[in-house]
Amino acid sequence: MPRHFESAPGLCEKPDAETNRYLFNQTMLRIKDPERSLDFYSRVLGMRLVRKLDFPEMQFSLYFLGYLAPDEENRVPEDDAARLTYTFGREAMLELTHNWGTEKEADFSYHNGNDDPRGFGHIGVTVPDVYAACERFEKLGVDFVKKPDEGKMKGLGFIRDPDGYWIEIIQADMMEKQANS
Amino acid sequence: MPRHFESAPGLCEKPDAETNRYLFNQTMLRIKDPERSLDFYSRVLGMRLVRKLDFPEMQFSLYFLGYLAPDEENRVPEDDAARLTYTFGREAMLELTHNWGTEKEADFSYHNGNDDPRGFGHIGVTVPDVYAACERFEKLGVDFVKKPDEGKMKGLGFIRDPDGYWIEIIQADMMEKQANS
Repeated sequence: MPRHFESAPGLCEKPDAETNRYLFNQTMLRIKDPERSLDFYSRVLGMRLVRKLDFPEMQFSLYFLGYLAPDEENRVPEDDAARLTYTFGREAMLELTHNWGTEKEADFSYHNGNDDPRGFGHIGVTVPDVYAACERFEKLGVDFVKKPDEGKMKGLGFIRDPDGYWIEIIQADMMEKQANS
Repeated sequence: MPRHFESAPGLCEKPDAETNRYLFNQTMLRIKDPERSLDFYSRVLGMRLVRKLDFPEMQFSLYFLGYLAPDEENRVPEDDAARLTYTFGREAMLELTHNWGTEKEADFSYHNGNDDPRGFGHIGVTVPDVYAACERFEKLGVDFVKKPDEGKMKGLGFIRDPDGYWIEIIQADMMEKQANS
C-alpha cells in the first residue's frame, strides 16, 4: 500500500493504482535568449542538454536540460527519436522554451513570478556544499537574490538566471545540521 | 568526460567538475488553498506528501510532494529531520507554498504564467497511457486546457491544477510513435 509520510487536510490516503507509474517529468520556463540561458545552465549550473526540438513552422525551439547520473550517461540513446522518449520518460528535466526573435527585442522580458502578479516561485538545485557553490557563483558573476548567510533562512541561497527566474541553492542536510547544532 | 547530446550556441561543452553532484531538486508553486491542492495532487495525480514544514512565526507552510519509486518507499526515513534531508537530496520534488489565510480571501488568486505577463509555463507529468489518463481526469472533473486530440500537438494533454497552473500530460514514447507511423 503506497503511503504518505505526513498527514494534512485534503490528502488522499490511498493513491489510485492508475497513477502508479506516473512521474514528475519536467518544468517549463520561457526564455528570451537561448545562447545566454544555455551558457548559464551548462557552464554555471552544470546541466546537460539532452534534447533540442525546433518547430520552424511555429517559430519556437525547446531545450531539455538535466543532470545525468554518472552511470546514466551511457544509457541515453544516440538516436534522436529514442532520446526524445528517454527525455520524456525521466524525472527532473528542465524545459526551456524560446520563441524565436525575442532575443533581438531590447525591451522584451519574461515575468519571474515573484513580483506581482505572483505565482511560480523558483526551481531548486541541490549542491554538496552550499557555501562553496555560492562562492563559485559569486566569482562567476552570478546575480544573487540572497546569499546563504543573509536573511532569516541561513544556509540556503537564491540566485537569478539570465531571465530573472529564481533558483534556490540547497544543501540537502543543511536544516538537519542546524536542528542538531 | 561528461557530454551533451545536442549542440547549440552558448552551450559549455565541458561542465565544471564542481557541478558534478548537483541535482535538480524542486519546483516551487504558490497555492491559495492547501486542502484543495493536496486533494488534487494526491487523489488525481497520485503524488505522495513526503514532507511538510510549518513556519508559524512567518505564517506559511511548505508541502513537498513527489512520486516515489516502488522500491524507494522503504528507504524514506521516518525521522522528520532525516526525511527533510531526504527530500532535499532527491530529484523531482514539487514544493507547494501556502501563505496562511489566502484560502479565506474570495478574490485571491495566483498568476499561472501563461496569461500576460508570461514566464513560467507548466510542469509536466509522464503517464503510461496519455489517452487513458486523460479519460480518467475527465471523469474526475479535471479542467482541461487541451485534450490529447485537440490542437496541432496530438497525443499530449494539458490540464489545470486548482490554482490554474498548467500541467502537461505526456506519454514518453508518443512522439517517437508518431514519427514512425
